[in-house]
Amino acid sequence: MTAIYPVIMCGGSGTRLWPVSRKAMPKPFLPLVSDETLFEQAVRRVAGDDRFAAPMVVAGAAHADIIMAQMGDIPGARLVIEPAAKNTAPAIALAAALLPADAVMLVCPSDHHIADASAFRAAALAAAELARQDYLVSFGIAPDRPETGYGYLQRGEQLAGGFAIRRFVEKPELARAQEYLASGDYSWNGGIFAFRAGHLLAELAVHRPDMARLVAEAVAGGRDDGARFHPAPVPFAAIVGDSIDYAVMENTARAAMVPVDMGWSDIGNWAALADALADGADDAGNVMRGTVDLDGCSGVLAITDGPRISAVGLTDVCIIVSGGEVLVTTRDGAQAIGKLPGALNQ
Amino acid sequence: MTAIYPVIMCGGSGTRLWPVSRKAMPKPFLPLVSDETLFEQAVRRVAGDDRFAAPMVVAGAAHADIIMAQMGDIPGARLVIEPAAKNTAPAIALAAALLPADAVMLVCPSDHHIADASAFRAAALAAAELARQDYLVSFGIAPDRPETGYGYLQRGEQLAGGFAIRRFVEKPELARAQEYLASGDYSWNGGIFAFRAGHLLAELAVHRPDMARLVAEAVAGGRDDGARFHPAPVPFAAIVGDSIDYAVMENTARAAMVPVDMGWSDIGNWAALADALADGADDAGNVMRGTVDLDGCSGVLAITDGPRISAVGLTDVCIIVSGGEVLVTTRDGAQAIGKLPGALNQ
Repeated sequence: MTAIYPVIMCGGSGTRLWPVSRKAMPKPFLPLVSDETLFEQAVRRVAGDDRFAAPMVVAGAAHADIIMAQMGDIPGARLVIEPAAKNTAPAIALAAALLPADAVMLVCPSDHHIADASAFRAAALAAAELARQDYLVSFGIAPDRPETGYGYLQRGEQLAGGFAIRRFVEKPELARAQEYLASGDYSWNGGIFAFRAGHLLAELAVHRPDMARLVAEAVAGGRDDGARFHPAPVPFAAIVGDSIDYAVMENTARAAMVPVDMGWSDIGNWAALADALADGADDAGNVMRGTVDLDGCSGVLAITDGPRISAVGLTDVCIIVSGGEVLVTTRDGAQAIGKLPGALNQ
Repeated sequence: MTAIYPVIMCGGSGTRLWPVSRKAMPKPFLPLVSDETLFEQAVRRVAGDDRFAAPMVVAGAAHADIIMAQMGDIPGARLVIEPAAKNTAPAIALAAALLPADAVMLVCPSDHHIADASAFRAAALAAAELARQDYLVSFGIAPDRPETGYGYLQRGEQLAGGFAIRRFVEKPELARAQEYLASGDYSWNGGIFAFRAGHLLAELAVHRPDMARLVAEAVAGGRDDGARFHPAPVPFAAIVGDSIDYAVMENTARAAMVPVDMGWSDIGNWAALADALADGADDAGNVMRGTVDLDGCSGVLAITDGPRISAVGLTDVCIIVSGGEVLVTTRDGAQAIGKLPGALNQ
């Protein structure tokens, strides 16, 4: 059996976990959940297992040096520098075009936390098997709450190791999300995919022919300096960016999903990080990093890179002190951090 | 008519408004409510009015230089250095012993905010008139809420310009405080007093003879270096400290009160400061000092001496950033600030 090719995606603007996450040092490269960064965890998750090839990393030039430093020396690893941020479909297509047509690629965001790496690898093997049969496979994350911030996948007919996808649902209203959760028939769309590289490109050519052509031109005109591949910037700049879900997954007749329950979180905001760190919370559900004194608080996330945080009487509040910025938000308010002046005008 | 002698008291440990207020620079010396400090306001309140003599200031040695700098050059002003903090009764007795026996002294804490200085002066004149008749007079602050953190004064028989005090009540339970507020018969004990100096000392000699004797010894053995009077430290150190309320007011048969409604606040905690600054609040009741971005907040007090504060979704929370410390507290929690490690271990 041929190996699975991990493609680790490093996009994102670094605003939702501001002020810790910054444009220059966004979420993947921060040790948010453990001493390892999320990117290091993504690399480690598929390392030392000969069912997986060395990773290909797709990222912007701004983060190339961080990536090389955090990835360490992995023989065969490649870094593809996106000339511009064009959402996930062009980034995935770049990787697909640089892989053998028959390679099964496993597209992994680098800014998610996965508590159970062996469940992840088991799902990856099942997804790869479906991908070899020319399914376009999405990981279907077992939902544990009626989350309104994610897309949902509805299961269709059963396949070996997974299901056909009957329907993609955009971020639902709460009542709808509650129905989905109760039905047991829906999973979260976690943004983790398995494709046969050649098949992905063929489907892209059908559904987004201009994008497929421009990616092919960018690769053909690209420059490989050994460790890094630089696609040609002019055709890449002409691409109309789109997500892989919109560009391909929602249009193909061969969308499939592999259900997986692996302690997944996209760490999409400070409240999500608090949840991911809940195992380390005190009896009142408070999570602390750095010098923190709490009195009468519950459900508080307090993180500081230096100045002491003292807090009294708070419930379900996140207090983040980093790089000379002080952020205080309710759990609900955490969704809005990216729109704050501090996050926007970095 | 002889002038009233203002005695401005500068005690307090600087913990309840930590981290802005510190032991080295406590509440009286900070520009909390306006560009003037509370101490400057206390001095200004009785300045330029020949019904008031130059002030006598009673303070610890640690704050003498700040006081001289903030008081400026007021002819006749005197500074009495407490050799030790012994609560209000010994401090007031020191001042009384340094004034003519027939002088009417007006004891003013320096860490209160009074919005209506002319109401204050009118009450001071009424209180002085009662003091000349050898009443021991407390300002009775018009209560505007069922505050459980203050002592209350119950009115007795009417006097010219005031009332006898029927009863002193310690900090009451909420239900009791609500009754007091509804009755119209109670005032807050604001810690502002008028006494004839000789009469205060005579009453002290009756109710706290040891204290009266030791204060007299400290004054007799004291040293005057011109601008500052230093009581003898040995007898002063032997005093068992007590408040003027416990030592004298609650024991005398001649306690009186002058009712006054003057926009008074003791700025006793961050929530009280937020209330005192309410005129400058935005439409949602938020008060901001320094670089502050709020989104979806109401009733927030946000004060920073440098680092930006960003806050989302909070209601009735105080965020204070000062001197490398970050404090976040609910309004209710503001009562507990003085017990935080940061406040205690300055």
